[in-house]
Amino acid sequence: MTVDQAASLHQEFTQVRKDSETLCAPLEIEDYGIQTIPDVSPPKWHLAHTSWFFETFLLKPFLKHYHEFDEHYAHLFNSYYEQIGTYHPRAERGLLSRPTVKQIYAYRQHVNAAMLVLLAQETLPDYPEIVRRCIIGLHHEQQHQELLLTDIKHIFSYNPLRPVYRELSMGNTNHTADLFWHEQPGGVYEIGADAAGHFAYDNETPRHKVYLNSFRIASRLVTNGEYLEFMHAGGYYNPAYWLSDGWKIVQTQHWQAPLYWVKQDMQWYEMTLGGVRKLDAHAPVSHVSLYEAHAYANWCNKRLPREAEWEIVARQQPITGNLRDAGYLQPMPADLQGLAQFYGDVWEWTQSSYSPYPGYRADSGALGEYNSKFMSSQVVLRGGSCVTPQNHIRATYRNFFYPGDRWQFSGIRLAEDIT
Amino acid sequence: MTVDQAASLHQEFTQVRKDSETLCAPLEIEDYGIQTIPDVSPPKWHLAHTSWFFETFLLKPFLKHYHEFDEHYAHLFNSYYEQIGTYHPRAERGLLSRPTVKQIYAYRQHVNAAMLVLLAQETLPDYPEIVRRCIIGLHHEQQHQELLLTDIKHIFSYNPLRPVYRELSMGNTNHTADLFWHEQPGGVYEIGADAAGHFAYDNETPRHKVYLNSFRIASRLVTNGEYLEFMHAGGYYNPAYWLSDGWKIVQTQHWQAPLYWVKQDMQWYEMTLGGVRKLDAHAPVSHVSLYEAHAYANWCNKRLPREAEWEIVARQQPITGNLRDAGYLQPMPADLQGLAQFYGDVWEWTQSSYSPYPGYRADSGALGEYNSKFMSSQVVLRGGSCVTPQNHIRATYRNFFYPGDRWQFSGIRLAEDIT
Amino acid sequence: MTVDQAASLHQEFTQVRKDSETLCAPLEIEDYGIQTIPDVSPPKWHLAHTSWFFETFLLKPFLKHYHEFDEHYAHLFNSYYEQIGTYHPRAERGLLSRPTVKQIYAYRQHVNAAMLVLLAQETLPDYPEIVRRCIIGLHHEQQHQELLLTDIKHIFSYNPLRPVYRELSMGNTNHTADLFWHEQPGGVYEIGADAAGHFAYDNETPRHKVYLNSFRIASRLVTNGEYLEFMHAGGYYNPAYWLSDGWKIVQTQHWQAPLYWVKQDMQWYEMTLGGVRKLDAHAPVSHVSLYEAHAYANWCNKRLPREAEWEIVARQQPITGNLRDAGYLQPMPADLQGLAQFYGDVWEWTQSSYSPYPGYRADSGALGEYNSKFMSSQVVLRGGSCVTPQNHIRATYRNFFYPGDRWQFSGIRLAEDIT
Amino acid sequence: MTVDQAASLHQEFTQVRKDSETLCAPLEIEDYGIQTIPDVSPPKWHLAHTSWFFETFLLKPFLKHYHEFDEHYAHLFNSYYEQIGTYHPRAERGLLSRPTVKQIYAYRQHVNAAMLVLLAQETLPDYPEIVRRCIIGLHHEQQHQELLLTDIKHIFSYNPLRPVYRELSMGNTNHTADLFWHEQPGGVYEIGADAAGHFAYDNETPRHKVYLNSFRIASRLVTNGEYLEFMHAGGYYNPAYWLSDGWKIVQTQHWQAPLYWVKQDMQWYEMTLGGVRKLDAHAPVSHVSLYEAHAYANWCNKRLPREAEWEIVARQQPITGNLRDAGYLQPMPADLQGLAQFYGDVWEWTQSSYSPYPGYRADSGALGEYNSKFMSSQVVLRGGSCVTPQNHIRATYRNFFYPGDRWQFSGIRLAEDIT
Repeated sequence: MTVDQAASLHQEFTQVRKDSETLCAPLEIEDYGIQTIPDVSPPKWHLAHTSWFFETFLLKPFLKHYHEFDEHYAHLFNSYYEQIGTYHPRAERGLLSRPTVKQIYAYRQHVNAAMLVLLAQETLPDYPEIVRRCIIGLHHEQQHQELLLTDIKHIFSYNPLRPVYRELSMGNTNHTADLFWHEQPGGVYEIGADAAGHFAYDNETPRHKVYLNSFRIASRLVTNGEYLEFMHAGGYYNPAYWLSDGWKIVQTQHWQAPLYWVKQDMQWYEMTLGGVRKLDAHAPVSHVSLYEAHAYANWCNKRLPREAEWEIVARQQPITGNLRDAGYLQPMPADLQGLAQFYGDVWEWTQSSYSPYPGYRADSGALGEYNSKFMSSQVVLRGGSCVTPQNHIRATYRNFFYPGDRWQFSGIRLAEDIT
Repeated sequence: MTVDQAASLHQEFTQVRKDSETLCAPLEIEDYGIQTIPDVSPPKWHLAHTSWFFETFLLKPFLKHYHEFDEHYAHLFNSYYEQIGTYHPRAERGLLSRPTVKQIYAYRQHVNAAMLVLLAQETLPDYPEIVRRCIIGLHHEQQHQELLLTDIKHIFSYNPLRPVYRELSMGNTNHTADLFWHEQPGGVYEIGADAAGHFAYDNETPRHKVYLNSFRIASRLVTNGEYLEFMHAGGYYNPAYWLSDGWKIVQTQHWQAPLYWVKQDMQWYEMTLGGVRKLDAHAPVSHVSLYEAHAYANWCNKRLPREAEWEIVARQQPITGNLRDAGYLQPMPADLQGLAQFYGDVWEWTQSSYSPYPGYRADSGALGEYNSKFMSSQVVLRGGSCVTPQNHIRATYRNFFYPGDRWQFSGIRLAEDIT
Repeated sequence: MTVDQAASLHQEFTQVRKDSETLCAPLEIEDYGIQTIPDVSPPKWHLAHTSWFFETFLLKPFLKHYHEFDEHYAHLFNSYYEQIGTYHPRAERGLLSRPTVKQIYAYRQHVNAAMLVLLAQETLPDYPEIVRRCIIGLHHEQQHQELLLTDIKHIFSYNPLRPVYRELSMGNTNHTADLFWHEQPGGVYEIGADAAGHFAYDNETPRHKVYLNSFRIASRLVTNGEYLEFMHAGGYYNPAYWLSDGWKIVQTQHWQAPLYWVKQDMQWYEMTLGGVRKLDAHAPVSHVSLYEAHAYANWCNKRLPREAEWEIVARQQPITGNLRDAGYLQPMPADLQGLAQFYGDVWEWTQSSYSPYPGYRADSGALGEYNSKFMSSQVVLRGGSCVTPQNHIRATYRNFFYPGDRWQFSGIRLAEDIT
Repeated sequence: MTVDQAASLHQEFTQVRKDSETLCAPLEIEDYGIQTIPDVSPPKWHLAHTSWFFETFLLKPFLKHYHEFDEHYAHLFNSYYEQIGTYHPRAERGLLSRPTVKQIYAYRQHVNAAMLVLLAQETLPDYPEIVRRCIIGLHHEQQHQELLLTDIKHIFSYNPLRPVYRELSMGNTNHTADLFWHEQPGGVYEIGADAAGHFAYDNETPRHKVYLNSFRIASRLVTNGEYLEFMHAGGYYNPAYWLSDGWKIVQTQHWQAPLYWVKQDMQWYEMTLGGVRKLDAHAPVSHVSLYEAHAYANWCNKRLPREAEWEIVARQQPITGNLRDAGYLQPMPADLQGLAQFYGDVWEWTQSSYSPYPGYRADSGALGEYNSKFMSSQVVLRGGSCVTPQNHIRATYRNFFYPGDRWQFSGIRLAEDIT
């Protein structure tokens, strides 16, 4: 590692840590503590847990004389690392009024200061491992930044006062780009991340061969307007389109539209981080579960892409799009007449289960729990969303949620076989 | 109503309203929003709901040109009055970060100012009804003051940081007064509240005759030390002492001691509003359910008193004791060698179901929902506790909870038949 | 005990035991094993459990050289006697295909034969206790005979094939007797069963004084036609009439009519043991919960009777009515122009919680669990129903169910205060 | 179709239909109706549903003048075909005493007779489709034959009387064959079933290319003895080996051993269709969930095979093994010193999620619901078990269950990467 690289890490650390706090600037103290459902964590928990990550995996093992901020935090802010020790029950994160928001910001300061000391110790024999873990910690924090925004949206959605996180720009696009089908010939491809390259999570490795049949993939995402046609065609009332597990949820949860859609006076509205606004028919549909994505695709006689199919097409595109840095914090219509929206707007459901790549080895120790233990019953999503930081996403990135989850910005890109 | 009476009501209104806020003074903003279980409400909800009560039952119907503080509050802070309109689901009170604590204090100010205007309009034809409802509103607020303290205790108990509400005095009594049995001859007695007398809730009326057999009642409450003997005798493991519904809870909830008892290093501790402290064997046992009270009494070959039995003995005692005004906020040992602890310390479980007195008529309109609709499956408790305001309790007062409830300061006084 | 008494007990034993089997004669083998809800037991379980009762409380303790039929039955057919030993989980009674129906009938034979031997040993020093327990066992079996019929009705109601237990007579009464109000002056009354008299359960004792205000009680039961008026007036949609706990059930269980009512082609039908038939407007409403009974009474500006009120009026009536022996197995219209329907037709909900009488002592040993441990959260019903054996019911008899229970033949008689 | 083929189908129909009844021969009438958990169906339901399949998909559409046996059966015995009409709730199959066992056998007779008439109409234009569906119906019935045995085992396991289905032979093998690792070089392989070949379900098609890395696969299944080592090493107490979802179940369901294992006097026993017997350390471990299989493999530093890996090795083996026809009805030790146990003994968990093959098209119409709608959250198992009919299994066969399911005969074969 060169001096420049070290300075750059130092700077990136400071920036990412600051970003989390900037995201929370619009919040009232009371907003920091709410947990609406077990999947959602209180904003202050995110702020504390990301600090706990640096404290646990870097400061405690590597910084001599490091003084723990509060001995209870090891338990309180461990998310799920069984090998680290006990952790507070996930569903009870919203029951903790203490530590206060002020104390948690002090905790962040404490951790930041110590981390800068540690990052300056470039002559330590463990320095390469310190750098490696620090980079993981920063990516980890960026993931939680995304969760901060999706969770705040969910928290506000439970409040009849309809709080607004921030005024949002509506953009200027009032049409939908035509959809065309990109064809990709079959054959053996390599997917996944190289061991020696840019940062990647262990679940993106190793790079490996897959055989793919020829296929077509849609040039852009499915729009709200297109999804409304499915609804008008009775999509939520016809089991023929649905996976069996999905149909059970439709019936027991009485799903009739994507999450956050609200019908008022015969008109559809949508709750956004900028408040309730009229549904934009040109914008990509969002906050749908895999079950809804699958049913929609079925209704169209199409299918969802496999994750390998998505990756080999997406990696030919530049990593730009409606990501968090664009500032919309809401999916926007595609105005580009080409392959569009692969990065940003919404996470795209694939038909691929989240499972280990051939030759996969989880990281050693507790950090190995980061990804590997979740490899059952979840589904891969690709491409990032309008609340994903630009420098966090890449073509090989594998996000994963349960097929019924809807509180993320998750949407639909279609594919089909060439026969 | 004389000028003096009006001035006194004015003053009492101001005092009671201020008391609620004084009780919240030790809280952090974050503490105001927590709801641990559906029974418990967030402190800020109590502050708002008690204001809603005055706004709904007094300001809106009687104060000309009254300007509602926020139109959403009618829904948000209605507890359960079906005839008033919709209400926010009880179990979701802790999911509301907004209105903020600051806004709720402003709401209180707004309601207080308007109420003082209304109370000054003594020439209104409705003034007697205004006074009547205002008095109910103040008693209502005092009930919520008690809940504020019991709910804060519960909220803090869920936090591994073990927050302390306030440093509490331990008192000087380190012995238990001897227990003796007060005998009361059988016959026809009158119980309940007179229509024309001091304030009473509708559920205490009408005054009516009951026939009682001769009985004995214990001179003081059961102590922690006595309850420990029951535990050491295997009380929580022997179904013979238990009501069937209670035994089911013992097994499914794994009850092994009263709520808030914690065993550390072979020693019992108790969580209090002043933090965790060593169990005082001389203090009355508290935070037991009816099922535990019943099982304990069974084990002693005694029984719980009927509410009429309790009332005819208690009304001979002065209304003094370890009530909120004493400042202990925790049950204290009896040092008096006579009939003791009828008021204060802990609410005393009776064996009487909460049901209407002969000739009972609920208040008319929505206020009739205050008490009458809860007259099933609940049990009467008598005498107030260490967090009940002194001027709120009386011999005829009927409190009621479900037999499995334990988060109130609830304890045991024994009785027996004379045969 | 005289020779005649002994002969009579012998004869009664034989008769009651035979009755249980006669009631099961219309069943297919498959019907014997079904448990629809935890409250309902499979018919074969009733047949076995009543035998287990004699085996456990009589044969094992008193019959020398008694040979247990099957050692597993002690566990399988114990209902809830904690002091006897373990018992099979109540909710899993329907999961036992073995023992077969044939084996259970053999078990009954085995127990019957041994019991007749025991009952012939009149010179045993324990003979009085044997007689006492045998009589309890016979009343116990009669209670289960009633449950057999209510449970079979429930079991058949879950089957889309709508099985018929037996063709039932419709009776000849196609009008409703006029309702008048019987007045009873207030004062001290004695209620409950004498220690030395006819058989009574321990929960009916001791006879004791109560003070009652003057009241009026309806001369007959509320009819289906009258209850329909409540429904047409929006009774199931107006929370003002309902107890709070009841209103929650109305909403979560979507109650809109009594259990077993079915609407077809704008017409109400009722499921009966004789199959589905048109609702008889003149017959008493049945299969309502306490909550529905209370809401109906509230809507009428009446109330439910206290159990003492019911008893002092009912005991002046002869014990006749539409009981099981009448053979209708369905409530029938009152044609009598006087105090009517106190016995039979439907169990009448009172407003009295099921609690111990003053001076109550539970039976000793495990038999004490028969009644006493259920004295919380349940409500007293009086008078027997159309499936209660004639010689099983009496004025002092206290039946008890939870306020939400509806699978028994339970109905409504109104009362009111005289003011 | 030749005359011979038609005769052979006729014969096969008769044989398969008879087999279902032969499997039920050891049952008492009472056994036919039990449903222990929603996954398990009552034996009589299996007998009726398999007949409903022929009636619905063959007799009603194709047999002129076919007279439905009972119009209610269309609803009662539809399992989950949404496009066919309504169906009885799955969890309530055990609440139906009617139709009786006798009526269901009559239903089978009725359907059989009509089917033989239909199969004789070889000149019908639809005859090829009739043949196609009939073959599906027979394979469908064989699947239910397997379920009959696994469900009977589960039903008997809930009964403290420990019923025995049939006396079972113990076999003669009292050792475990050595385990060796079969190596398979990487490359592009074809897997799946040919469209034109032997019968296969739609989910096995189309035959398609996959790329596989080099790997090793174990020559035989993991034994009870080997699995015991994992248990002794604390496998059920160490979260490090477990998938996150699995660890939650271990804790909430208190899993400590495979299903049906019972510890008595410090010794492990196993419930089998032949009764409780001492655990055979040499026999393959069975009745483990995917979570347990995964944890075991993790503990060994191995992994589960992918379904494609399994298939390309297994298809080189003859389809023989401990299948139903061998009569053991219980997994048996491997005595073969080569690649062993690929067919029979236990279904082998793979690490592959159950998802559509590239180019997959579900069957058209309601029959398309047979397999396709279950392609989420389930996992593929391969190879058949000791209760699978010999002529039902093949190398391409894909069975699927949820990762927590344990009531099937499911076990473990290990694999590893070659690196």
